[in-house]
Amino acid sequence: MTSSSDRDPPERVVVGMLGCGTVGTGVARLLLDNRDRIADRVGVPVILGPVAVRNLSRRRDVEIERLTSDPHEVTTDPDVDIVIEVMGGIEPARSLIVEALEAGKSVVTANKELVSTLGEELLQLAHGKGARLEYEAAVAGGIPIIKPLRESLAGDRVRRVLGILNGTTNYILTQMTEHGMAFGEALAAAQRLGFAEADPTADVEGNDAAAKAAILASLAFDTRIVAGDVYREGISRVTASDIAFARRMGYVIKLLAIADDDGSRIGARVHPCLIPSDHPLASVRDSFNAVFVEADAVDDLMLYGRGAGALPTGSAVVGDVVSAARGLLSGEQPPAHGTRHSKPIRPFDELVAQYSVRLSVADRPGVLAEIASVFGAQEVSIKSVWQEDTGETAQLVFITHAARERDVQRTVEQLRSLASVRDITSVLRVEGGEV
Amino acid sequence: MTSSSDRDPPERVVVGMLGCGTVGTGVARLLLDNRDRIADRVGVPVILGPVAVRNLSRRRDVEIERLTSDPHEVTTDPDVDIVIEVMGGIEPARSLIVEALEAGKSVVTANKELVSTLGEELLQLAHGKGARLEYEAAVAGGIPIIKPLRESLAGDRVRRVLGILNGTTNYILTQMTEHGMAFGEALAAAQRLGFAEADPTADVEGNDAAAKAAILASLAFDTRIVAGDVYREGISRVTASDIAFARRMGYVIKLLAIADDDGSRIGARVHPCLIPSDHPLASVRDSFNAVFVEADAVDDLMLYGRGAGALPTGSAVVGDVVSAARGLLSGEQPPAHGTRHSKPIRPFDELVAQYSVRLSVADRPGVLAEIASVFGAQEVSIKSVWQEDTGETAQLVFITHAARERDVQRTVEQLRSLASVRDITSVLRVEGGEV
Repeated sequence: MTSSSDRDPPERVVVGMLGCGTVGTGVARLLLDNRDRIADRVGVPVILGPVAVRNLSRRRDVEIERLTSDPHEVTTDPDVDIVIEVMGGIEPARSLIVEALEAGKSVVTANKELVSTLGEELLQLAHGKGARLEYEAAVAGGIPIIKPLRESLAGDRVRRVLGILNGTTNYILTQMTEHGMAFGEALAAAQRLGFAEADPTADVEGNDAAAKAAILASLAFDTRIVAGDVYREGISRVTASDIAFARRMGYVIKLLAIADDDGSRIGARVHPCLIPSDHPLASVRDSFNAVFVEADAVDDLMLYGRGAGALPTGSAVVGDVVSAARGLLSGEQPPAHGTRHSKPIRPFDELVAQYSVRLSVADRPGVLAEIASVFGAQEVSIKSVWQEDTGETAQLVFITHAARERDVQRTVEQLRSLASVRDITSVLRVEGGEV
Repeated sequence: MTSSSDRDPPERVVVGMLGCGTVGTGVARLLLDNRDRIADRVGVPVILGPVAVRNLSRRRDVEIERLTSDPHEVTTDPDVDIVIEVMGGIEPARSLIVEALEAGKSVVTANKELVSTLGEELLQLAHGKGARLEYEAAVAGGIPIIKPLRESLAGDRVRRVLGILNGTTNYILTQMTEHGMAFGEALAAAQRLGFAEADPTADVEGNDAAAKAAILASLAFDTRIVAGDVYREGISRVTASDIAFARRMGYVIKLLAIADDDGSRIGARVHPCLIPSDHPLASVRDSFNAVFVEADAVDDLMLYGRGAGALPTGSAVVGDVVSAARGLLSGEQPPAHGTRHSKPIRPFDELVAQYSVRLSVADRPGVLAEIASVFGAQEVSIKSVWQEDTGETAQLVFITHAARERDVQRTVEQLRSLASVRDITSVLRVEGGEV
């Protein structure tokens, strides 16, 4: 802030930026195009200062006055009040953010890898320095979810958060659902359209969603959860026939990130789920994201929107810049939003959920009874069964009542050893219903 | 705030409350039950002080220490830092809020009538006194929408807001859609369940939604819009057969509040609409509310949740109390969120939208051509037609391309004068598609 003394109101806020790829370009464009609106909201102009990039000569869609190849020029410039970090990855992003915070600058980041592993340390450092660390853009792109969890629900108790946090996998599942495509075919379509990367592992195996789930869980339950704490299963084994069977039983299949507080322990997991087709998350199509919150007072709440893209994510970054700038101007001490509790993580095999188990069995008398008794012996109670005969074999789908993961896995093991069971086609969890 | 001098950090924040009906009881319970969580978020304890009620002897579901029948005891108590107003209505709520603001206290209100008519004056008064006026609970109950519009989208340009803002009418329309009920039957069911009042006019005729639309439009477009500026049509003339015909053409019928900025003028209206059944708003069932925002950068955003009820609305009030308390503690000057622009209101007959026109006509050759030529003469272009013969008469449904309200009304007038037209059964606007 340019001010003649500490007491004079500053005349402007200067923002520096680390990185200028897709999101950075979006941020720069929004800061420039909406300069008047932003000045209105902040009270003084917000100026884009130095921007550090790897390649100075690369063509960009936006005019940036001060490009530099030295990121320290951004983090150490005494004129810079707020540093935006949109490089991604752990290093050098972490060191540069530390450098900026140490210098008392506020930081706005869109970096989910960093926040989901080292967020706690960075928030504590920021707090110690009287600086802010904002990260709305790190989860679900343009959807405001960090602020609502932190502020609007401050007087409430969140029980559970369910999110569609990865647009690539939601696009793939939508294609499989609406056009009967196989997984590989839908993935190839997503790659052609630029929704999926050449190496789709991070999206398809649930790692991207797991990092975001860790951030949401930490915030919702005021407990430190890192990406490594989140159980994950991807969608590469989901088949078009799983989806078709689910639909006949009134469900759709979505890759959900789910975090819950059962009173004493926190669970955090990412895996494909059946959800009832009239659940609000079922209508989240294509590459859209959504976060569904179940809380004591507010009951059900869903926030839906674009989870990625230069402008949606850029919009979330700029919203954070406006908050940080207003905080700087007012001299408000930033909230101590580190985590206050340290509830243990619930082991995944102690999860209690509903399950869908699909099998191919010999089509002869007594088989259904034999299989049902295996469920019964493990105390897994059956809610509904669907059978389709296909000649020598029959397809069976069981939906269970709430059961323990461990007991269901034991049930499946025992079913596999039966002579009458040809194949356990799929075991999927069911959410959004009972429990 | 109890502090020995202006410089010492205050030890607590005291909240007074005007009114203690359904929402007030929810607020009191949340403040008491979540006292530790709230103290964590604010930094110091938040204490419920005096609560003014009309009837001191009424039984309440929550233990309140200081009940008074004199509301001025709340607004003038020097220990009270924040006044919550949950009385509703214009007077005496307005005078009491003015009294509190004049005394430099911050105010949190859930009063949509007041904010939608005199919000601007109250915000200016608050700003002049260095106090805050927060009103998250006045629109869409527990859904965080005021803060996201004001803060998260600060760097974006909102083009349009579409909301399902009245739970009663959404419940009625859901019953009509899913159970084929007539309007009167669904209204009676809503009244039995306590979702609709004995006199349902405010809900059913769109007045409640219009007040909320005015508040959202003012905020989204930074222009003063009062409830009286909002065009309104209720749902009492919507029939089960309108809904059935809409469904066959791939639409559902919802009562929408819509506000848009066409670049030079602001439109604000509440009326029943056809929306495509795969639009996210179409899946908002029962008494849930939702706000769908279309903005330049963030693209489509939807916020969904409980629009009413003691605890959801109470949760929004408590979220505002936490913000106001944090603002008080930090000494932050509240944002000047009065309206900065004064764009004119677009007259309703200049609306450009798609329309659905359903008629009953004589079933004989040449009638379709005759009717289509009336549309053509008014430059209303037809997108699709659906015809069903029912003996002597045929049912025709036209969906138009984007057309001007005035031209469509002229078309309908002319159609009414044709001998072959038995009845114009319904004229409804279509949203969520082209335009």
